[in-house]
Amino acid sequence: MVKHYELIHPKTTMRVLSRYEIEQLRDIDSETYELVKRCCYAVLSAGSQSDNYLELKEEFRHFDIEVQQEDRGIVLNLINPPESAFVDGEIIRGVREQLFSVLRDVLYAQESVLKAHRFNLSNSEDITNAVFHLLRNANVLKPDCVPNLAVCWGGHSIPLQEYQYTKDVGYQMGLRGLDIGTGCGPGAMKGPMKGATIGHAKQHLRTGRYIGITEPGIIATEAPNPIVNELIILPDIEKRLEAFVRLAHGIVIFPGGPGTAEELLYLLGVLLHPDNHNMPFPLVLTGPQETEAYLRDIDRFIGSTLGSVAQKRYQIIIDDPVKVAQVMKEGITRVEDYRRRRNDAYFFNWGLTIDPDFQLPFDPTHDAMANLCLSKDQPAHRLAADLRRAFSGIVAGNVKEVGITRVMEHGPYQLRGDADVLAGMDKLLSAMVSHGRMRISGNYTPCYEIVPADCCND
Amino acid sequence: MVKHYELIHPKTTMRVLSRYEIEQLRDIDSETYELVKRCCYAVLSAGSQSDNYLELKEEFRHFDIEVQQEDRGIVLNLINPPESAFVDGEIIRGVREQLFSVLRDVLYAQESVLKAHRFNLSNSEDITNAVFHLLRNANVLKPDCVPNLAVCWGGHSIPLQEYQYTKDVGYQMGLRGLDIGTGCGPGAMKGPMKGATIGHAKQHLRTGRYIGITEPGIIATEAPNPIVNELIILPDIEKRLEAFVRLAHGIVIFPGGPGTAEELLYLLGVLLHPDNHNMPFPLVLTGPQETEAYLRDIDRFIGSTLGSVAQKRYQIIIDDPVKVAQVMKEGITRVEDYRRRRNDAYFFNWGLTIDPDFQLPFDPTHDAMANLCLSKDQPAHRLAADLRRAFSGIVAGNVKEVGITRVMEHGPYQLRGDADVLAGMDKLLSAMVSHGRMRISGNYTPCYEIVPADCCND
Amino acid sequence: MVKHYELIHPKTTMRVLSRYEIEQLRDIDSETYELVKRCCYAVLSAGSQSDNYLELKEEFRHFDIEVQQEDRGIVLNLINPPESAFVDGEIIRGVREQLFSVLRDVLYAQESVLKAHRFNLSNSEDITNAVFHLLRNANVLKPDCVPNLAVCWGGHSIPLQEYQYTKDVGYQMGLRGLDIGTGCGPGAMKGPMKGATIGHAKQHLRTGRYIGITEPGIIATEAPNPIVNELIILPDIEKRLEAFVRLAHGIVIFPGGPGTAEELLYLLGVLLHPDNHNMPFPLVLTGPQETEAYLRDIDRFIGSTLGSVAQKRYQIIIDDPVKVAQVMKEGITRVEDYRRRRNDAYFFNWGLTIDPDFQLPFDPTHDAMANLCLSKDQPAHRLAADLRRAFSGIVAGNVKEVGITRVMEHGPYQLRGDADVLAGMDKLLSAMVSHGRMRISGNYTPCYEIVPADCCND
Amino acid sequence: MVKHYELIHPKTTMRVLSRYEIEQLRDIDSETYELVKRCCYAVLSAGSQSDNYLELKEEFRHFDIEVQQEDRGIVLNLINPPESAFVDGEIIRGVREQLFSVLRDVLYAQESVLKAHRFNLSNSEDITNAVFHLLRNANVLKPDCVPNLAVCWGGHSIPLQEYQYTKDVGYQMGLRGLDIGTGCGPGAMKGPMKGATIGHAKQHLRTGRYIGITEPGIIATEAPNPIVNELIILPDIEKRLEAFVRLAHGIVIFPGGPGTAEELLYLLGVLLHPDNHNMPFPLVLTGPQETEAYLRDIDRFIGSTLGSVAQKRYQIIIDDPVKVAQVMKEGITRVEDYRRRRNDAYFFNWGLTIDPDFQLPFDPTHDAMANLCLSKDQPAHRLAADLRRAFSGIVAGNVKEVGITRVMEHGPYQLRGDADVLAGMDKLLSAMVSHGRMRISGNYTPCYEIVPADCCND
Repeated sequence: MVKHYELIHPKTTMRVLSRYEIEQLRDIDSETYELVKRCCYAVLSAGSQSDNYLELKEEFRHFDIEVQQEDRGIVLNLINPPESAFVDGEIIRGVREQLFSVLRDVLYAQESVLKAHRFNLSNSEDITNAVFHLLRNANVLKPDCVPNLAVCWGGHSIPLQEYQYTKDVGYQMGLRGLDIGTGCGPGAMKGPMKGATIGHAKQHLRTGRYIGITEPGIIATEAPNPIVNELIILPDIEKRLEAFVRLAHGIVIFPGGPGTAEELLYLLGVLLHPDNHNMPFPLVLTGPQETEAYLRDIDRFIGSTLGSVAQKRYQIIIDDPVKVAQVMKEGITRVEDYRRRRNDAYFFNWGLTIDPDFQLPFDPTHDAMANLCLSKDQPAHRLAADLRRAFSGIVAGNVKEVGITRVMEHGPYQLRGDADVLAGMDKLLSAMVSHGRMRISGNYTPCYEIVPADCCND
Repeated sequence: MVKHYELIHPKTTMRVLSRYEIEQLRDIDSETYELVKRCCYAVLSAGSQSDNYLELKEEFRHFDIEVQQEDRGIVLNLINPPESAFVDGEIIRGVREQLFSVLRDVLYAQESVLKAHRFNLSNSEDITNAVFHLLRNANVLKPDCVPNLAVCWGGHSIPLQEYQYTKDVGYQMGLRGLDIGTGCGPGAMKGPMKGATIGHAKQHLRTGRYIGITEPGIIATEAPNPIVNELIILPDIEKRLEAFVRLAHGIVIFPGGPGTAEELLYLLGVLLHPDNHNMPFPLVLTGPQETEAYLRDIDRFIGSTLGSVAQKRYQIIIDDPVKVAQVMKEGITRVEDYRRRRNDAYFFNWGLTIDPDFQLPFDPTHDAMANLCLSKDQPAHRLAADLRRAFSGIVAGNVKEVGITRVMEHGPYQLRGDADVLAGMDKLLSAMVSHGRMRISGNYTPCYEIVPADCCND
Repeated sequence: MVKHYELIHPKTTMRVLSRYEIEQLRDIDSETYELVKRCCYAVLSAGSQSDNYLELKEEFRHFDIEVQQEDRGIVLNLINPPESAFVDGEIIRGVREQLFSVLRDVLYAQESVLKAHRFNLSNSEDITNAVFHLLRNANVLKPDCVPNLAVCWGGHSIPLQEYQYTKDVGYQMGLRGLDIGTGCGPGAMKGPMKGATIGHAKQHLRTGRYIGITEPGIIATEAPNPIVNELIILPDIEKRLEAFVRLAHGIVIFPGGPGTAEELLYLLGVLLHPDNHNMPFPLVLTGPQETEAYLRDIDRFIGSTLGSVAQKRYQIIIDDPVKVAQVMKEGITRVEDYRRRRNDAYFFNWGLTIDPDFQLPFDPTHDAMANLCLSKDQPAHRLAADLRRAFSGIVAGNVKEVGITRVMEHGPYQLRGDADVLAGMDKLLSAMVSHGRMRISGNYTPCYEIVPADCCND
Repeated sequence: MVKHYELIHPKTTMRVLSRYEIEQLRDIDSETYELVKRCCYAVLSAGSQSDNYLELKEEFRHFDIEVQQEDRGIVLNLINPPESAFVDGEIIRGVREQLFSVLRDVLYAQESVLKAHRFNLSNSEDITNAVFHLLRNANVLKPDCVPNLAVCWGGHSIPLQEYQYTKDVGYQMGLRGLDIGTGCGPGAMKGPMKGATIGHAKQHLRTGRYIGITEPGIIATEAPNPIVNELIILPDIEKRLEAFVRLAHGIVIFPGGPGTAEELLYLLGVLLHPDNHNMPFPLVLTGPQETEAYLRDIDRFIGSTLGSVAQKRYQIIIDDPVKVAQVMKEGITRVEDYRRRRNDAYFFNWGLTIDPDFQLPFDPTHDAMANLCLSKDQPAHRLAADLRRAFSGIVAGNVKEVGITRVMEHGPYQLRGDADVLAGMDKLLSAMVSHGRMRISGNYTPCYEIVPADCCND
């Protein structure tokens, strides 16, 4: 096979690496090299239409990267890069800049966070400081900006109608000067950015920010589209979620699969923490007309488990992009007032309390599931944390390989808690299956059993 | 009726007016005031969906503008402006900047071109210098830019499919770093700009130019959309056409009505001038699959009248946005080479010879029509000039009030020239009617008669 | 003689000329060409130490310029330029930019002011509008700047001590963020700029403005030093003075010769106009210790002729650069308040009334001198206007060729007015001679006679 | 005593601190706090004329700092700051930016270099990487700049004539577009920057760099003047010297005391390393006419010890600022060629080999002195290293408290080596005393004895 080389010069920052760092990037046995290579490949193949896994794997086998020093800085040598990253043989500039974001973030995470012994990453405060340092190094914390970041969450694989709706919402938010942050990938992650691009163009805003927040485990399947002009790669999923909620000045949630529901539970769990009681945080659930039933299902579930306090934290808006944008805009104005009065930073929500429950990872073993407490006899934010975990475990038991295997081996998960909480969860999952948002072959059967118990008094 | 005031501050230039100029703009009896007011209203109502003429007229009756001096510059006071220019009560910035473009261009045209006695506007060279001075004053001549301006022409009222195609072409050109110039308005004038906006966003090009070139007679019906970030208002249609061809580094023509066909004849007429023989000027006729027959009709007509020399000046590309963009990109590279070799400016095509035939206006009276020479016994560029005029007259005779009235009063136009030339024109017009690009009530009947004559030897 | 060519590319603006303008600049018989050539030569020879007039004249004979079109704009070809404008064969960038300021201003003055018939240059309002248009075209009117322009006047040929003092004052003003405007040339015109440069550097102000305001008649002897980063060439001395007082937010006057005294009379005459009564206009007369006597002489003269009202218009500060800067800074704050309250522009003092007496040139013939009225039986601003003229005429009669000749031919000027006014003027001129600020060979003898008369009741 | 508070907002970077960092800066028992406070005080008192040590100490006792979070970033609260840092109650912006440079560098050095365990600071490569990371964090490594940094070394306390000469050299280098780096403080460290400021102003270079490189032990006595617009605080003297030679594209040495001579020996020692043999590194020794004898003394000493190879590394230029600037400019062009050919970075001289001898500190005990080898029977760069140490020790023995005490206790240092090397050193020190560059009370008596020995074969 003939090798194809491309020398890529960074146009912006990241041109000044130490010998030490260049060695890290050249040492093909190092973790840094491996991570950088994988993430670079993901960025380069973002435009690729192929979802043939084997084909991609074969292509990746021939792909490689090299970092070199040159008089004016460094260059990145791409060997056999995917063609979709190029237009008439020239790399798309959005892709090029994202490649150097990968280098920047992976190097910094490895050298200055994970290996630096400066942060104790099982301590809540240190985790938050680490997330801050990662974001600052990525130059994403802008002290001069007034709050205007609307984060959008939602499904990656959605019908065209829903995709068009996410574009309309993005357009209306862009027209109102809001910037967009998403988790990268297609669908509800891409639509708002495209829409906002047109909105910003009409406002002659040349400095629109399209922030993509991802992590190495997810970037391969949900690659950033080239519009993303600030790409940040956090080391893991929990730090990514924390980055989202500390950067966002408001969040819009579009209909998605179980992943989106989990994100909603995460966010509500955080917002229900008593420390966060008075903190404004605009949150809108929205979709086109045809998604109304689904959004109502979610709302009902939240109401029946976390109660009306949780429901008051969000607003459901059906088929009205202008109103979504207006509600976000107004809400963010309140965020600005709140922060200014308290001398809080605009660019990072230090004031938000995130319980370690939400910062440390959860692995759904049978033991871990049996120890959850799904009872309303506890503060709502604790129930939210365990619900999110239970939800995560049940989804795994139904659709993820590791979960299915565990259930086959050890029988259904034993869940302790209130019967109506479990019933509500059951109903929501059924709704997701019937709305086609969760792929199940055959009928949906619960992978858990209820063990009525006074779990919270243990 | 309660008056609604909006004080608009310019954010960019145009903040420094002399008392003399402010007086011009405040003198409600002056031509300058009237022109500015009308153009401002057109800009402000661009987003309006209404095409109810009477409603617009009534709205305009209540509309007014005032210019005031303030410590930091001038402000523009809008009285009862159309609501569509505002988002939640704030003017769209794209609209705001266009308002000040109006002030700038109308003032300059009146004071420094039309009334300044510096230019003899019936002299070809002076007309060209005047166009140059107008464009320079609008800051649209950028000496640092390498040639990259693709001008797009085509219909304003086109089917959704064709509109989507113009967006795709714009997107591919934007991805290749080309800027877009159009004549403002919807349809094929708006699609390429929206497409290019997304292309530029992927290339992280924050300096994309979306140039709208218009004139007071046309701006009301074809208002600039807010994406246009460089709006230029030339004093009349001929100077607007000259601005187009001297600014453009290449032109893409999408299917349109008779207006578009006239523009093509104008451009071919200019390019066929012997002085322009060796000058590269990329020109593409393109549309989606369903427009192929129509594009072939046009091609046939050009072939049968202006000959294969004219046909060689353009390339027809069917349903292939990538190829259109590549052909433009390559063609423009040749333009750059050509200009550099000759030390020609990149930003204004001084080298293009434009015959006064194309610079002076044509009024299709019966006499004027009878004096045209539609014979091939003359250089192609002269035939093109008369064809364009004949074409313009016939269109007027069929659909414009002044033309229809003249034909009703004096009978059909008497056209002199070759029978086959007239037959070709006839066929093309029929094709337009049958393709639905020219609205005719009832059957199409020619409004002219052929008078075989050796017109060119007169 | 071997010709020496230098191709100079403008780095900033002025790169876009029309063919018409290039022709003006290439037509060696045109007034524009001649003016541009002379001014360019002055700019280029600013660094030259030679004051050997014949040598300079010979050098000028071999000097020439040519303007050419290139792909990226225009270039200026210098033929046999003075070496002092170059460092190791490369033109000093400050000089290069000034060359293009010359082109810009001379072209605009000729084409858009003098020949454009737009302005009636014997009408006061039109003169002011013309000055405004010239300044705007030179891009010197900045709407975003808060008032901060301190204009400095004073002698060009001054002792080292005084020069050092002007640097100290400039340094203190620069430290306080003030920008500097002067009339170009050495001495008190250069010192404040050098001082302010260091002051700005300590404040890390990279946008300091060093504005030079000159006219073709004066530029040859008082060439701009390269620190001047905004050079403006007004068409004549009156428009230059008007530009000074409408741009300045405050003025510092250092000791100078009779020219400086005339400027003071001009300024006081304008400020004493009743319309300007309440307008704040900080004005400081200052110098080092050794100039105190001289400054007191001037003060006495003003007091005895224009009265204490005139004296209240300025403040004399001896040997205290910090205080000068503080007084200017405070005074300019009051200017800002005044303009903001009245919605006056910050960048051009439209509100200042300048009597046509000060806008139209004065030629000191015997008739003109005899018609002056040097009596206190009239408003002070009228007396100031005639004093300035008388002063100008007497200086001419003593030291200028044309004046001396006239006096030799027709005898002493006959001046009508109050005896004590004439006596005061006499005393001041003697003081100037004794302080060495006015070169007189032999004893100073008045070139005028007093004709006591009720001049003002004529 | 009434406390005086000043809230200082950073205008540039350094506005985004983590809670962790703010805690470091607020913990008054931490080393970081103490270092920051001391360095901030030094920066603030730069303009102070007082050299009354007790007065300064008393003032410092009342001084304090506090860092606070605000909505738009951080603010620095100064309690009882020295008045000299303020102009009319407002802090000089140059001083303000330097304060935040202090915060930046001290925090980074503590957290990311000294405590991070990432670098083994007794290992040569790691030291170099640490210096690089410190400089990069200070944003002083600019990949887009072509080599143009002239570093100036020389005495801090010099006669007015010599100071004026350093200004002239700086002016000529500034005229040629060179940027200036010095070690901060007055005299030869300040003159070149002031001169270059005027040179840059004439070239309309608004981006001139005035780089100050210092360390906590020296900043108090040699505070940066406010013109310094890039201040870098390295953790110690050795890293500061390494920063100098890796950043510099050329070095100018003005006459100074023994400290300057040591710097010359350091630099020659590094350049004489065989690895650096072919590396261009422009080095000029220069001063006004009256310093010629002194410069010749130094030259003779170098010749007699390190030989003509060392002498070829520098050029002595007497009283000719233009030539100094030309030699530097040309030399730097050769540096650029050399780096480009080898793909070396322009912004950091990775290619320069610095022996650990020059990176690790030297403490002149009697043992350490006795172990030096001052013989020519070794490579010149090794002799240079030991000469520098011997020189340093002898100076200490003569004028520094710790050295004098040691010599009083243990008798003269025992130096081993060639008699003529020692004699040369002796002669140079006498010359320094006689030229008044080394303050000795009473006659100068050597504090060492020669022990002839074959030291190098031990």
